[in-house]
Amino acid sequence: MLTTLALSTTLRTSFADAIERTRKALSEQGFGVLTGIDMGVLTGIDMKATLRAKLGEDMADYVILGACNPPLAHRAVTVDRQIGLLLPCNVVVRTDPEARGTVVVDAMNPQMMVQVADRPGLAEVADNATTALQAAIDSLQADTA
Amino acid sequence: MLTTLALSTTLRTSFADAIERTRKALSEQGFGVLTGIDMGVLTGIDMKATLRAKLGEDMADYVILGACNPPLAHRAVTVDRQIGLLLPCNVVVRTDPEARGTVVVDAMNPQMMVQVADRPGLAEVADNATTALQAAIDSLQADTA
Repeated sequence: MLTTLALSTTLRTSFADAIERTRKALSEQGFGVLTGIDMGVLTGIDMKATLRAKLGEDMADYVILGACNPPLAHRAVTVDRQIGLLLPCNVVVRTDPEARGTVVVDAMNPQMMVQVADRPGLAEVADNATTALQAAIDSLQADTA
Repeated sequence: MLTTLALSTTLRTSFADAIERTRKALSEQGFGVLTGIDMGVLTGIDMKATLRAKLGEDMADYVILGACNPPLAHRAVTVDRQIGLLLPCNVVVRTDPEARGTVVVDAMNPQMMVQVADRPGLAEVADNATTALQAAIDSLQADTA
């Protein structure tokens, strides 16, 4: 088991503001948010809307942003052609139903790549990705303070 | 380490046909291919086009399909709110530069969810997802035969 599946922080703000700030923080670390084939469009997967449309189920706000740093993604795919199974790096923005007024941001811990596919060279890419994503998460917390 | 990161098969066909057949096989197992917030649009992440546009790097055909089975996704998120970090289930369709005329299809092994987030109830969801994705992969091979 990994020590942590996610690099996480909790913000006291609205859901819309949390998404906006997360996208900005990712962008400052070189991560675009991929949507389909267009990296320019900043949209994510809206789980709440999807599950309501498909199942009629209701859940708290929950959006999955697919974050991609092109140079890091290129290095990862060059080292291991299967690594696209873990790309883009997901960042989940979700309200906490147990704590009104707070929004949780979870970024996938890139060390997971090394755990599931231990190819030579992958550890360095994962370390770089971890540093960048942790910096994005930390900057969100700094905004709040 | 997992025994297998991917549920895989290799097809002797064109890249476009492999994508088309993979989407059909996923659909028959209840998996839509998510693009942004719209599950209806059947597009994926075109790594080749993205990396060429962003880095000027050339690589073999490589598309990531984000496959989502809404009932299974709902159960997974209900059991573990962080599991969106591993959703949708990626399916990579890629040409093999070492073997002309062949296309590799790799589906993320859902057992990875259990490895990284061992919550009660998650194993059953992962087993169901594995069965469905393996059936989709097997049906591709049957098409070829």
